[in-house]
Amino acid sequence: MRISTRSAVDPFIVMDVMQAASAAEAAGQHIIHMEVGQPGTGAPKGAAAALTAAMDQGALGYTVALGLPALRARIAQMYGEWYNVDLDPGRVVITSGSSGGFILAFTALFDTGDRIGIGAPGYPSYRQILKALALTPVDLPTQAENRYQPVPTDFASMDLAGLLVASPANPTGTMLDKDAMGALIGACAETGASFISDEIYHGIEYEKKAVTALEVTDDAYVINSFSKYFSMTGWRVGWMVVPEDHVRVVERLAQNMFICAPHVSQIAALAAMDCEDELQANMEVYRENRQLMLDGLADAGFSTFAPPDGAFYVYADVSDLTDDSRAFAAEILEKAHVAVTPGLDFDPIRGIGTVRFSYARSTADIREGLRRLKVFMQGR
Amino acid sequence: MRISTRSAVDPFIVMDVMQAASAAEAAGQHIIHMEVGQPGTGAPKGAAAALTAAMDQGALGYTVALGLPALRARIAQMYGEWYNVDLDPGRVVITSGSSGGFILAFTALFDTGDRIGIGAPGYPSYRQILKALALTPVDLPTQAENRYQPVPTDFASMDLAGLLVASPANPTGTMLDKDAMGALIGACAETGASFISDEIYHGIEYEKKAVTALEVTDDAYVINSFSKYFSMTGWRVGWMVVPEDHVRVVERLAQNMFICAPHVSQIAALAAMDCEDELQANMEVYRENRQLMLDGLADAGFSTFAPPDGAFYVYADVSDLTDDSRAFAAEILEKAHVAVTPGLDFDPIRGIGTVRFSYARSTADIREGLRRLKVFMQGR
Repeated sequence: MRISTRSAVDPFIVMDVMQAASAAEAAGQHIIHMEVGQPGTGAPKGAAAALTAAMDQGALGYTVALGLPALRARIAQMYGEWYNVDLDPGRVVITSGSSGGFILAFTALFDTGDRIGIGAPGYPSYRQILKALALTPVDLPTQAENRYQPVPTDFASMDLAGLLVASPANPTGTMLDKDAMGALIGACAETGASFISDEIYHGIEYEKKAVTALEVTDDAYVINSFSKYFSMTGWRVGWMVVPEDHVRVVERLAQNMFICAPHVSQIAALAAMDCEDELQANMEVYRENRQLMLDGLADAGFSTFAPPDGAFYVYADVSDLTDDSRAFAAEILEKAHVAVTPGLDFDPIRGIGTVRFSYARSTADIREGLRRLKVFMQGR
Repeated sequence: MRISTRSAVDPFIVMDVMQAASAAEAAGQHIIHMEVGQPGTGAPKGAAAALTAAMDQGALGYTVALGLPALRARIAQMYGEWYNVDLDPGRVVITSGSSGGFILAFTALFDTGDRIGIGAPGYPSYRQILKALALTPVDLPTQAENRYQPVPTDFASMDLAGLLVASPANPTGTMLDKDAMGALIGACAETGASFISDEIYHGIEYEKKAVTALEVTDDAYVINSFSKYFSMTGWRVGWMVVPEDHVRVVERLAQNMFICAPHVSQIAALAAMDCEDELQANMEVYRENRQLMLDGLADAGFSTFAPPDGAFYVYADVSDLTDDSRAFAAEILEKAHVAVTPGLDFDPIRGIGTVRFSYARSTADIREGLRRLKVFMQGR
């Protein structure tokens, strides 16, 4: 059988690192995982307890396509608590992770061949999901002086049908402040481009609160998830906020393409939202890890990066150390037994000179990883 | 913001029935639900127990994109047990329900504008997912003498890029035997069309075992789910079997579009596969319900339908009773307090003269529903 053209998406380059790390572990080596993009912690205990109780009580069949009304209402309430935004729960769509949100947003907004701007570096799956849906990702190379976030001049007269931004961003952890977010939204409004804001790392912030696009406008798609701050990656549940006049369109797409997000995960997510103590304890770990990374990476000799405002990544310029980030990541794994992600996954061009370090795991792992990286750099 | 052209998918016509039924229930009426497409039972008890144990033990982060190896192996084993087919677990892809399987299959196989044949009547979301992915669904009106399944002459010289069949089918419950399946697969092979077999109702069979496309060929996509026989609709977990040389393409699409199917649901699904006693008890209910329907519908005056080989639906021709199935369903709800699905959801043309009755719920409900339908018909 013929394979489609649209399915020719790129593999993750980090998979090579992960396979080599697995092989090393199978051979008895101890590897520190700084390549992973997910918390080491599980769902809050209250989430598991709520689910166990629910499984005793009912059949947990399909929910309605837009999701459990109580979960939509609780998320809307959170926008009041976190951002002082008054949000109609009717605009909240529960999705199968942020992945489901992207599929729904892209199909609701764009037609074949439409050009959608994405910041480079950025989350690799943006590009691949767009391609798989027969859309055209347009890389916008971002600048260090703009803290690796796009600015309106990056896409002026580019004829974009949409712009997708992330704040805090993966892999850099940098954020857009309200002025920067407003400038991007304004530039999109002028040209009729749809604005999509990926806010999956909200809640994992260090110096100040992240800004939601909804503080600036109602005319945006906001995508979020329970995977990061709520520490529920494997549960595949997230949400999207859409303009009021898009709800029916997204509902029909969701009915047909997903039926609903996992019912069990929706129940667990609702309970997780009331587990603030446990979630803040996770945050204390990230906070300590971040400080260790800022000090330790510089001490080891990785000194060129923007201090992360949020998320749990440091994206370092290593172009003074290598001309091939893939080979460099392989060397770090082989010699230091630390797995890191080559920048090429996030930026197909300039990523040849960058790597991403994750600090999502335990503080003990971060200390040991930094120690190994310092020894590695001293011996290089 | 502009809404895309591809997102202009049709609403489910049954939603009007469901809303009217909800309103009637809110007003204190008792409604028998023969419109629903899901079991009234929950996941097997062993599934819930396995999940509760797993939540105590680990973080339940992302699984690999193709799914838990133990679940893929167990599914491959089932093909030996159910069909005597020797299946490589490496060809099994765990999906986010059959919905996730359709999205992956369609993007792996087809490019913008490609024409994909689907039998009419058929599951409404086939048409809508294809449209949302910028593909072109081609309705193949099936004939009563072919038991409402397509035959090769239905699509000869139609220039199809693919054919999607379902056996047992929704809404008719009819099956393709091995010869009929083989003829369709042969016709597709001759013209280079990709063959997709929706086998979601396998296991829910009455007179004989359903045939899987894998008994005929390895050159097919087979889509299945834990929603129906395993009674786990809300869990959003299913699987797909693909040709060996398509595994890598589907894996890359799955990594980017879904990351993975819900980890919790994969654990529960694996345990559900060993809960045969409970699942067979559900089957006894369907078997009794089916016999009640065959006798009771005819007795009430709904006599034109193909006896269902599988699934839990009867699709009846009511063109002698109405010239508008939508109005007829509304009338049945209003006067008999029984919710049924107008055929227009399954066949946009001929469905004006058909309705679907579901017998997925309790036997007591089926008895009462049939009693009400008989009284309704007598008073008409």
